[in-house]
Amino acid sequence: MVNDDMAREAGKQAAAKLDMPVSRIRRCLEPGPIVLVSSAWQGETNIMTMGWHTVMEFSPSLVGCVISAGNHSFRLVRESGECVINVPTTALTDEVVGIGNCSGADVDKFETFGLTPAPALKVSAPLIRECHANLECRLADDSLVDKYNFFIFEVVKAHVASSPHYPRTLHYTGDGVFMVSGKIISRRSKLRPGLL
Amino acid sequence: MVNDDMAREAGKQAAAKLDMPVSRIRRCLEPGPIVLVSSAWQGETNIMTMGWHTVMEFSPSLVGCVISAGNHSFRLVRESGECVINVPTTALTDEVVGIGNCSGADVDKFETFGLTPAPALKVSAPLIRECHANLECRLADDSLVDKYNFFIFEVVKAHVASSPHYPRTLHYTGDGVFMVSGKIISRRSKLRPGLL
Repeated sequence: MVNDDMAREAGKQAAAKLDMPVSRIRRCLEPGPIVLVSSAWQGETNIMTMGWHTVMEFSPSLVGCVISAGNHSFRLVRESGECVINVPTTALTDEVVGIGNCSGADVDKFETFGLTPAPALKVSAPLIRECHANLECRLADDSLVDKYNFFIFEVVKAHVASSPHYPRTLHYTGDGVFMVSGKIISRRSKLRPGLL
Repeated sequence: MVNDDMAREAGKQAAAKLDMPVSRIRRCLEPGPIVLVSSAWQGETNIMTMGWHTVMEFSPSLVGCVISAGNHSFRLVRESGECVINVPTTALTDEVVGIGNCSGADVDKFETFGLTPAPALKVSAPLIRECHANLECRLADDSLVDKYNFFIFEVVKAHVASSPHYPRTLHYTGDGVFMVSGKIISRRSKLRPGLL
C-alpha cells in the first residue's frame, strides 16, 4: 500500500524541466489542453482550472484567455497582473477535476490537492511543480477584461519537462467529460519550408 | 481500385447533421482541434486552416480567433463580417495540411481539395459538407483586429454530425506535427451540480 502510494505520487512528478524559448510555446498550448492557472496576490495564492485559451502571437509570445470574474482567481490575477499557466498531464486528472470543483475562497488548493508551489523566475505567482510545463505570464492587455473577462498575457519565461516530448494531456469537452491526447502524426515532409 | 477510391471518399463524408444549440458548441471547440474557416465575399470563396481559437462565452455563443492579415481569407472575413468554422476529422488530414500549405490567391481550395460547399442558413459563407461540424459565425467585435488580428465571432447556427459523439480530431503542435484526439474519459460523477 505504501509502495502503491509512492508509485502513484512518483507518477505525478514531472521530469526535470528545461527552458523553452517563449516563441515556441504553441507546442504546449495550441493542441488545446486544459490548464491550471496559478496566481498570487498579497500573500494569498490560488489555482484554477481553465479551458478557454488561445495562442495569439509568437513574438512577443501572447496568450489570450478567459478568467471569469466569478472565479476567486480573477482578483489575484487582475491585481497582480501576473499568473502562471501550468499544463497538467493525465497523472493529475483527479487534481484538475477537484480544483475546478471548489473555490479558493474556501480552501488552500496547493495544500488540499498536494501540489507543490515552486518559485517562478520572473513573476510572483508560483509554478506548480507537478505539471509538465509552466509558463510565466505578465498581463499585456486588459482592454477586453471588463467586457469579456478576456486577458491577454505575454509569456515571459517557459519551463517544460524534458520528456515526454508530447505529454498525455486532458482536453475538456464540457459535461464532466475529457478527451485524452492520442497518437502523434507528422506531416512535416508535406509542409512548404515557409511554414516550418 | 475504383472501390478503394470510393471507400476512401465515403470515409470523408460526415454523418447527417443535426442542429446543436449554439450555447453548447464548447463540445466541438474547447478540446482545441484544428479547424477550417470558410469565407465568401463578392463571389469569391476561400478556406484556411486555423489553430488559434478559443471559446469566450456560452450565451451569446462567442469564439475568439486569430486570422493573420497575411492570409488571403483575412479580407474576405473582414469585409463580409462572416465565416463558418468547420471541424474536420482525421479523414481530412491531407486536406487540412494541403489547405494550410497554399494560398487562396492562387487556387480555388474547394475545387483543389475536392470539398463540397454547402449553403449556410444565416451567413453567406459556405459550409464544408465533409466536416464533422459547421459553425456559422458573424463578426461580433473587431476591436482587436488591427492590433492582434483577433476576431470575436458570435456563433449564430451550429450543424453537428449525429455521430460519432466524440470525433477523431487533429490538434496542431507546430512543426508539421499533429496530435490526434484519443480516448474519452468521464468524471461527470465527480463534478458538483453547478458545473454541469
